[in-house]
Amino acid sequence: MTRDSIDSDLIGGCRHEVVGEVVEIGSDVSKFKAGDIVGVGLLVGCCNSCRPCEAEAEQYCKKKIWAYNDVYTDGNRTQGGFSASMVVHQKFVVKIPEGLAPEQAAPLLCAGVTVYSPLSHFGLKKSGLRGGILGLGGVGHMGVLIAKAMGHHVTVISSSDKKREEAMNVLGADKYLVSSNTASIQAAADSLDYLIDTVPIHHPMDDYISLLKLDGKLILLGVVNVPLQFFSPLLMSVYVEGRKMVTGTFIGSMKEIEELLEFCNEKGLKSSIEVVKMEYINTAMERLANNDVRYRFVVDVAASNLQD
Amino acid sequence: MTRDSIDSDLIGGCRHEVVGEVVEIGSDVSKFKAGDIVGVGLLVGCCNSCRPCEAEAEQYCKKKIWAYNDVYTDGNRTQGGFSASMVVHQKFVVKIPEGLAPEQAAPLLCAGVTVYSPLSHFGLKKSGLRGGILGLGGVGHMGVLIAKAMGHHVTVISSSDKKREEAMNVLGADKYLVSSNTASIQAAADSLDYLIDTVPIHHPMDDYISLLKLDGKLILLGVVNVPLQFFSPLLMSVYVEGRKMVTGTFIGSMKEIEELLEFCNEKGLKSSIEVVKMEYINTAMERLANNDVRYRFVVDVAASNLQD
Repeated sequence: MTRDSIDSDLIGGCRHEVVGEVVEIGSDVSKFKAGDIVGVGLLVGCCNSCRPCEAEAEQYCKKKIWAYNDVYTDGNRTQGGFSASMVVHQKFVVKIPEGLAPEQAAPLLCAGVTVYSPLSHFGLKKSGLRGGILGLGGVGHMGVLIAKAMGHHVTVISSSDKKREEAMNVLGADKYLVSSNTASIQAAADSLDYLIDTVPIHHPMDDYISLLKLDGKLILLGVVNVPLQFFSPLLMSVYVEGRKMVTGTFIGSMKEIEELLEFCNEKGLKSSIEVVKMEYINTAMERLANNDVRYRFVVDVAASNLQD
Repeated sequence: MTRDSIDSDLIGGCRHEVVGEVVEIGSDVSKFKAGDIVGVGLLVGCCNSCRPCEAEAEQYCKKKIWAYNDVYTDGNRTQGGFSASMVVHQKFVVKIPEGLAPEQAAPLLCAGVTVYSPLSHFGLKKSGLRGGILGLGGVGHMGVLIAKAMGHHVTVISSSDKKREEAMNVLGADKYLVSSNTASIQAAADSLDYLIDTVPIHHPMDDYISLLKLDGKLILLGVVNVPLQFFSPLLMSVYVEGRKMVTGTFIGSMKEIEELLEFCNEKGLKSSIEVVKMEYINTAMERLANNDVRYRFVVDVAASNLQD
């Protein structure tokens, strides 16, 4: 353990959305003490000197270190949260506010901040806006909850009608559109201040940008590994019809994670999770592959039978 | 003439960048009086009630009326500035500030405001930024002048070395890159706060977005009639490497035209123009087609021998 890192026993979370209790702190650690409930997200390191680092946007640092499957400064491989304990530099640790359940905090550390970050950064954290969430998975469901908690009118756009009941009655969305229903998509033209695209596979963009109002923002969160094409009529509509903007963000900063935890605690926001033990991990992985979880498994490592 | 329109004798400008002297005003006109030197840009009408109109962004009104080759509310075809006089609603008329030569004001009314609008709207009208101008034509040369007057470090990117001397020594650019020189483009990566793309034909975008810093903006002004593709590595760089943004704007609002005229008058900004008479118009059109003007012809209609 280095002087400015902490050692924590893990009590919940998953590979890169980790919640635990501090068991030991280095001599230079000032932010935490033993017994604190803390969280670690996708990152555990950055260069601290580049432009993004200096702008408190360390998630864009080119030398960032991932919490799992990466190489740390000491040459060891990072292991993420599937372990009894981990050592992390205090910069990449957040305190879980009192009142927020650890298992509820866990999905906020990556999925949650991934949708919170663009809403906050692009000035969309204000009531009265009309937003859209494209795709209702782990990130999308968090988007609906967070946008509703911000006081937005929220439209969910999905590829089928299957998630309508869930979106409207469980998550509290205001409107549900099926992407293949061209008539209903066209009827919703010029209605959204922003559209958060969480779909990680290739899909046509043309119809969606027309949903945006003047100055509307299309925010891409899903990493798509094929060329993303903007066709000519779309491009025309981007600017001739209203100074629209295509952008994207990547997870969020530590500062934004802290803000989000406070925000969710204050608003009493509850995400949909299923808490399981480590013994269940292989089944959980199979169910994940079959898209059979709404929307996140949280592994209770402390309650699991671990072999150290 | 309607009660809220003015009639002006044209003394300069071109088809949609028109400067003239007010000769008569309607009884409801309060902004102007006979003898005022005024300007008219690309638009002469809008609906006044849609979201863009209410946001003083009437250039995005879906019912906007173009100053030429469009149909006015009275059913007549709009004729633009190639005439001895025109009648225009006062909303679409700006006063040319004292001290600004009419022939200098003319190119600001469309080309000028086309680059001014995004710089102003996206918060880029502040000194110390590093900007890029892709393409050095009528709009691009105005971009260099305006960005320099705002106190920016300006890089011009062109398809050949031909305009280097002009860009650096006449217009005052700080840096010149040839787009086919991959090594120099790559060496300039992560250096620009914004890149204004004025090129109206298809061109690869991949290299250019890498020029942008964290939060950098790619602003499209050239209307391209083929699909605009963002390839995967590019898309990744848009967001994984820094919350970059692709957007575009269309001309500018009347308010922005007024701001620009004041700004250019105050800064003593001079664009490169060639003043000709109407008798020269066919030669001017041929030279335009051959890209043989730096950068705008201004037709002195008042000094021309017109048959009414």
